[in-house]
Amino acid sequence: MSFTQQLRQKADSIWKANHEHPFVQEIGAGTLDLEAFKYYMKQDYLYLIEYSRVFALGAFKAPDLETMATFSTYLQSTLTEEMSLHRSYAKRLGITEDELEHAQPSPTTIAYSSYMISEAQKGSLAQLIAVILPCAWSYSEIGKKLAEIPGASEHAHYGEWIQMYQDDEFAAIAEWLCTKLDQLASSLNDREQEQLETIFITSSRFEYLFWEMSYHQTNWE
Amino acid sequence: MSFTQQLRQKADSIWKANHEHPFVQEIGAGTLDLEAFKYYMKQDYLYLIEYSRVFALGAFKAPDLETMATFSTYLQSTLTEEMSLHRSYAKRLGITEDELEHAQPSPTTIAYSSYMISEAQKGSLAQLIAVILPCAWSYSEIGKKLAEIPGASEHAHYGEWIQMYQDDEFAAIAEWLCTKLDQLASSLNDREQEQLETIFITSSRFEYLFWEMSYHQTNWE
Amino acid sequence: MSFTQQLRQKADSIWKANHEHPFVQEIGAGTLDLEAFKYYMKQDYLYLIEYSRVFALGAFKAPDLETMATFSTYLQSTLTEEMSLHRSYAKRLGITEDELEHAQPSPTTIAYSSYMISEAQKGSLAQLIAVILPCAWSYSEIGKKLAEIPGASEHAHYGEWIQMYQDDEFAAIAEWLCTKLDQLASSLNDREQEQLETIFITSSRFEYLFWEMSYHQTNWE
Amino acid sequence: MSFTQQLRQKADSIWKANHEHPFVQEIGAGTLDLEAFKYYMKQDYLYLIEYSRVFALGAFKAPDLETMATFSTYLQSTLTEEMSLHRSYAKRLGITEDELEHAQPSPTTIAYSSYMISEAQKGSLAQLIAVILPCAWSYSEIGKKLAEIPGASEHAHYGEWIQMYQDDEFAAIAEWLCTKLDQLASSLNDREQEQLETIFITSSRFEYLFWEMSYHQTNWE
Repeated sequence: MSFTQQLRQKADSIWKANHEHPFVQEIGAGTLDLEAFKYYMKQDYLYLIEYSRVFALGAFKAPDLETMATFSTYLQSTLTEEMSLHRSYAKRLGITEDELEHAQPSPTTIAYSSYMISEAQKGSLAQLIAVILPCAWSYSEIGKKLAEIPGASEHAHYGEWIQMYQDDEFAAIAEWLCTKLDQLASSLNDREQEQLETIFITSSRFEYLFWEMSYHQTNWE
Repeated sequence: MSFTQQLRQKADSIWKANHEHPFVQEIGAGTLDLEAFKYYMKQDYLYLIEYSRVFALGAFKAPDLETMATFSTYLQSTLTEEMSLHRSYAKRLGITEDELEHAQPSPTTIAYSSYMISEAQKGSLAQLIAVILPCAWSYSEIGKKLAEIPGASEHAHYGEWIQMYQDDEFAAIAEWLCTKLDQLASSLNDREQEQLETIFITSSRFEYLFWEMSYHQTNWE
Repeated sequence: MSFTQQLRQKADSIWKANHEHPFVQEIGAGTLDLEAFKYYMKQDYLYLIEYSRVFALGAFKAPDLETMATFSTYLQSTLTEEMSLHRSYAKRLGITEDELEHAQPSPTTIAYSSYMISEAQKGSLAQLIAVILPCAWSYSEIGKKLAEIPGASEHAHYGEWIQMYQDDEFAAIAEWLCTKLDQLASSLNDREQEQLETIFITSSRFEYLFWEMSYHQTNWE
Repeated sequence: MSFTQQLRQKADSIWKANHEHPFVQEIGAGTLDLEAFKYYMKQDYLYLIEYSRVFALGAFKAPDLETMATFSTYLQSTLTEEMSLHRSYAKRLGITEDELEHAQPSPTTIAYSSYMISEAQKGSLAQLIAVILPCAWSYSEIGKKLAEIPGASEHAHYGEWIQMYQDDEFAAIAEWLCTKLDQLASSLNDREQEQLETIFITSSRFEYLFWEMSYHQTNWE
């Protein structure tokens, strides 16, 4: 079993809880409260900006040109394609550009973003990958699962979200990150591999808190 | 009014909530559940390690020798004096060295620490100071307030904690950070001053969440 | 006069020395020793990798999405277009891929690259821009000047180099960096503006040392 | 043979050249041009500030409290003891405080400092140690060698310098760095160990350039 498959297995109970979270389930069933989804869209937009910064740091920390170029490509595609999809999608849901640009990050958005940025800045490239992998990978798994539900991908409000994340092009990001992390982890000692595991699990848990926060539209007070 | 006094005023309702938090109040009354305090001691020890790292980064980012030297002195005193006080104190409370060294950070400890480290790494020296100031300053305020309660400083379990934070030497850290931040802020434009305000308020809110987490001994599940 | 025009003026004597450096002049005249040019190509390829990393850091440090996106675009175009031009050009000059990939950085290449990376990592976005601007801007000036020499752009060995740097698309990078730096500098105090000046001048001087090193094909011993 | 002894052996020809450099030899013989030494003192003072920053980053990057505390102690002792010795020594040599504080870094000082800071910021703790070790270690070797020359430690101008660096307390820094690096390197793969070697050798070469620059009192023009 590859290193990243081991990570996936160790985090399995958390990932199950993520996939079964009412927010995710109700996207699939098309029954999610639209206000909760709009809240989520705004927080996720803020999150994506920080997520993009991690790709930028990946390009900075890459040991070779090929790795630099791949991070650069994903940075570019996240900033242009994914975020532009978000903007037009948000617009159709009735979120004004101003609301999107001036949303205030919730405690969980700050916590998860800070964790990513902090690990990505101070850590090795392997640690940087471990911290963003749960987001890229679990969204792809969720997208593909929800797409199997008849009619889900055509839902007026949530179909577009499912289509975005069930896409093979989106899955390719997680696959590349896995390949890269497997490669880097192979020459690490036990202590370093355990650190990667801790990071992967912590980010997986923040994914859970992010669904939780979105479902309850939590803010500071 | 100085810039930091303005910050203090803007965060006043949060600071009030911090000072009036049951965890803090019950330390003063001597009625706090000892298990909650022991939980807090372990999480705070983890937090202090990251807090020390911010002083190290302060020395790294300092524009002049004098500022470097002051950060270096506080790094040294936090690592040697404050943390050694924590260790002996924890011991007297029945926390073994092993428990202290191997405590797992709670979600809020990770969130607050990551926020500090992330801002301190990517930000200017003023931002670095803004992110740690609420901790240094509010602990000093709390220490001094609780010390006024008759008998509080002599309490078998919590007296030592109050004595540690009501000390003028401890207050000197917050005072120096304020002087330094006032100095740096004076040449910043409005947008930059607002950023400092956001950081100061966010850390103040994390202080609240830290008391909250300690009172309820919260963990991931 | 804009801030960057002031920088340009203050560095004018260094820039004149750069433009009049025999290495540059002999590219224009088509008389440069081909071995010196091949040495330069290899060192410049190493330099460009580090220069790209600065764009990646720019995307990381950008305060808004638009600035992130522009840095990301230049990162992408430097890594794909400019460096691919270098590779094919190098091939035509008889430098094998292996020679290009395994060239050892000379002392000056290490010094200049380290200076860029060090300032870009620890400094503000304005400092990051100030450290790479002399390269982007002076190459554009040199490209345009040499292109005016009849026949220079068609020279068998050096024409391609002149064409690459006289291009308006290449000039657009320096122009955008200038606009951005003018914008950022407008709200900085005197001490901070002087720091930017020192950085701009130091990078301009490293440009000189880079021509000097290339002309003499200098190495550690 | 330990990893650091291997490094020392691989860099042996460079270290020999350093030890035999006329600047070093003439300190031992007491014949060095005082102006060259004063120039050196000013540049070295600038260098020491950046060298201290590397200790601060070491404390930031340290994986455990003990390592943090040791870096913190050396940061503190360099900033207070070593640099204060420099200041009083400089004064006795007729360098005014103002001259010392406002000296402009030479190209080599900028290059070496930037290389240190750049590697220390972006690299692992092992890389951070590898980049400062040649300075700490070779000064100790040089100090001890020159102290064997009869009368050298009592020389009116250079005796104090020799005494400072022949001291066992100063040697302890290099010894600790070696122990730490041996420990960290033991779990690294070949490619990572080679990177450490490259860094160690590059810093050793910058040591040479620093003596060279001091002997010739080189500046930008």
